[in-house]
Amino acid sequence: MTMARCPAYCRLERLFTRLTLIEQALGLLHWDMAAMMPPGGAASRGEQLATLKALAHELLTAAGVKPLLDAAVDEDLDDWQRANLREMRRDWMHAAMVPSRLVEDLSRAGSASETLWRKARPAGDFAAVAAPLAEVLRLTREMAEIKSQALGVPAYDALLDQYEPGGRAAAIDVVFDDLGAFLPGFLEQVLAKQTPPPPGPRGPFSIERQKALGLRMMAVLGFDFEHGRLDVSQHPFCGGTPDDVRITTRYDEGAFIKSLMGVLHETGHALYERGLPAAWRTQPVGRARGMSLHESQSLLMEMQACRSREFLSFAAPVIAEPFEAAGQPGWDADTLHAQIVRVTPDFIRVDADEVTYPAHVILRYRLEKALIGGEMQVADIPAAWNEGMVRLLGIRPPDDRRGCLQDIHWYDGAFGYFPTYTLGAMTAAQLFDAAARAVPDLPASIGRGDFRPLLGWLREAVHGQASRHTTDELLISATGRSLDPSVFKAHLRQRYLA
Amino acid sequence: MTMARCPAYCRLERLFTRLTLIEQALGLLHWDMAAMMPPGGAASRGEQLATLKALAHELLTAAGVKPLLDAAVDEDLDDWQRANLREMRRDWMHAAMVPSRLVEDLSRAGSASETLWRKARPAGDFAAVAAPLAEVLRLTREMAEIKSQALGVPAYDALLDQYEPGGRAAAIDVVFDDLGAFLPGFLEQVLAKQTPPPPGPRGPFSIERQKALGLRMMAVLGFDFEHGRLDVSQHPFCGGTPDDVRITTRYDEGAFIKSLMGVLHETGHALYERGLPAAWRTQPVGRARGMSLHESQSLLMEMQACRSREFLSFAAPVIAEPFEAAGQPGWDADTLHAQIVRVTPDFIRVDADEVTYPAHVILRYRLEKALIGGEMQVADIPAAWNEGMVRLLGIRPPDDRRGCLQDIHWYDGAFGYFPTYTLGAMTAAQLFDAAARAVPDLPASIGRGDFRPLLGWLREAVHGQASRHTTDELLISATGRSLDPSVFKAHLRQRYLA
Repeated sequence: MTMARCPAYCRLERLFTRLTLIEQALGLLHWDMAAMMPPGGAASRGEQLATLKALAHELLTAAGVKPLLDAAVDEDLDDWQRANLREMRRDWMHAAMVPSRLVEDLSRAGSASETLWRKARPAGDFAAVAAPLAEVLRLTREMAEIKSQALGVPAYDALLDQYEPGGRAAAIDVVFDDLGAFLPGFLEQVLAKQTPPPPGPRGPFSIERQKALGLRMMAVLGFDFEHGRLDVSQHPFCGGTPDDVRITTRYDEGAFIKSLMGVLHETGHALYERGLPAAWRTQPVGRARGMSLHESQSLLMEMQACRSREFLSFAAPVIAEPFEAAGQPGWDADTLHAQIVRVTPDFIRVDADEVTYPAHVILRYRLEKALIGGEMQVADIPAAWNEGMVRLLGIRPPDDRRGCLQDIHWYDGAFGYFPTYTLGAMTAAQLFDAAARAVPDLPASIGRGDFRPLLGWLREAVHGQASRHTTDELLISATGRSLDPSVFKAHLRQRYLA
Repeated sequence: MTMARCPAYCRLERLFTRLTLIEQALGLLHWDMAAMMPPGGAASRGEQLATLKALAHELLTAAGVKPLLDAAVDEDLDDWQRANLREMRRDWMHAAMVPSRLVEDLSRAGSASETLWRKARPAGDFAAVAAPLAEVLRLTREMAEIKSQALGVPAYDALLDQYEPGGRAAAIDVVFDDLGAFLPGFLEQVLAKQTPPPPGPRGPFSIERQKALGLRMMAVLGFDFEHGRLDVSQHPFCGGTPDDVRITTRYDEGAFIKSLMGVLHETGHALYERGLPAAWRTQPVGRARGMSLHESQSLLMEMQACRSREFLSFAAPVIAEPFEAAGQPGWDADTLHAQIVRVTPDFIRVDADEVTYPAHVILRYRLEKALIGGEMQVADIPAAWNEGMVRLLGIRPPDDRRGCLQDIHWYDGAFGYFPTYTLGAMTAAQLFDAAARAVPDLPASIGRGDFRPLLGWLREAVHGQASRHTTDELLISATGRSLDPSVFKAHLRQRYLA
């Protein structure tokens, strides 16, 4: 046996194959922790995860990697390999630029802050967590500064890049300012027009039947059960690996719509993962392209396709079937549709509807940008939060539990994540609009419960591209233009005012 | 922060903590593969497992480890640390002595042979798998020779040591010859005395109710559901980690007793894992002591405790309850007991009863010892197998499907494993006998469904010792003597001839 010649790029591919497989193992361990693990397994699972993460970090930041990255640039690579090398360098930069002392300090500070937050939130006691949050913020700003130097972008953008490769606050500002100016007046119009919905289905709805319905709908959307499962966890998510996609939901015997919508949402994520090119699986370029595009795939399925009146024509009898409720009042398509497009300004982001959700996100985005920029201090958060809620949604949280204590993100050190939710919602609208132009009679096929035309278009335009292009390039290629809030606004006008 | 002094032994502890945590992650990935994974996940799961195994192997066989092992010998260690160092060296020897070329060849040959075996077994076509099995044997003998040199023991013992640390064929020969001479005559007596059992419970038995019964019985034996689960897999096993023990079973709607006995068996394994000292978790000395002792813990629960007439007094109404069969004919303690102590010579090891099982094992042990020793060739297996069955059990397999093709072990390269089953059965009898002498009214407490006295004794005598002592030392300390087949024989006489 002779050793084939393997220059720098080739050796990097081998390294990243290994890293990807460790990441996949971590993905399964995380899924199990949320969906299967008995409570007593938590401590040792934490150690297992930390060990595998440390091993992957050591492999990626070993002394030999930078010379390989530098040497590979001068090798004869095709476009796909160049895109892969770009993603490799980005991974390496995020891992290697930050001193391990800072990584450990941040991890420790995040754990301490999160632990206190879990007590402070139900008590609405922001003061109890202000100091640990300030420490998390201080260390995050230190890390942002280092990555800012390495990437040559502003500090906030360097954090954003962890979740949204190439994301720029300057560009987000433009679309969020546009949307933020639009929403309050639009919301007023919707609330003025909206009438109380007719009474919907009455429970209880057994978990067994809800699960049967969820599985049925997953199959309708194109979920591949040879390569995935549906289970239960406290916080629904999509995990696992592209060849073994694990989605979860949560059931409430008193209401089934929220769980069902959650299943459709996670199925959108799952279809993206499953649609990534099989041959690229072990390389960074084969991964899903950032959080905003991932969220666009879940919201495209949930919000654009499945909350449409057309889908309900197909879905209403399918929904009624496991509950043996066909023909009963409240189970018709019009009533079910009225239930799922109801708009209600409220305090909690995760419970928000499609119209008010962006307001929650814009508020958090503006605050975290000011916190990272040093223009705002931790102590200022509660007042700024409540004022922002009044300005954007016209309601003032009665306490910090329903205000600035509701989300885990900051307390856990995740600054730069929030904007991806609404970037995803806007991207979903723009992609669905493009699909509707490209696919003949798309609403009609959805109205027949036939998702193959839509999925076929997504496979080609989005899933099959993986991380080969930047998010902006992908969007231009799929829709003809960069992110344009007017499409999302048109969708909202069409659904809620037409 | 200053770097604390960490001499060789201390650095080894850190290395083995890491290796243990990787092993734990592998354990969970294996459990998931058997109990949860959709079929399409198999290929990527294989890659994930191979990657983590390779990483662990590289860490253990790195150039710096041998000098640490050698230096640690001269350090000031206490007895516990010396025992830990002994186990570390054993791990290292098994991993580092065999050239990676041979490890890979064996892995490849085993996979090829196993794949062919899966087709050859149902067809009863030994010839189709003889050549690949011969290749596995050739490579296994090569490996055995290398380990034999390193350990200073005969080749077969070096293989045995992989599963049964310190196991010696010379010692096994003595007890197996004794038992092998006893069994044929004893079996004849049992069959002469045995009358057809009264009709037992009639199905179908719903899986849901069988599962409820299994969970109830696990709780009776002392299974800790804060630290474990019961799930389904094709081949029942006990996996996971000591803090998160995952046992599985398989249900048949036409019969519940086999599944229930399987649950009790795996619960015995689980109690052992869970009883290992928490503070020793991440070190080799904290592991369960070899396969024969592990099997002794499952068989002690299943065979010694739960197939006893005393246990059935308690269990019969508990068993009837989920099936709403209390008081119905066939569900009384005497009838249920008659069902589970039935002796029937048959061809298949995994279906064998307590009396005939050792004959299956002794046959395999003698053949594999001859194969490793070079006194027998692969082509001789079918004839030798069938003659052995006649000699030991008085029946001749009508084909190789029900003969030498039935077990995966050899085809997968696992030579040296078989004897641990019957060593475990004998050890179980000897430990249970000792427990009955030490614990007042042990049968009476089992007859009340109170397993705390038995478990308390096992925790102290077996579980809490982990790998601190050799198997022989542990047995002497717990029972006053080395393995003595007369205790097992007395148990059989008592149960089947009294």
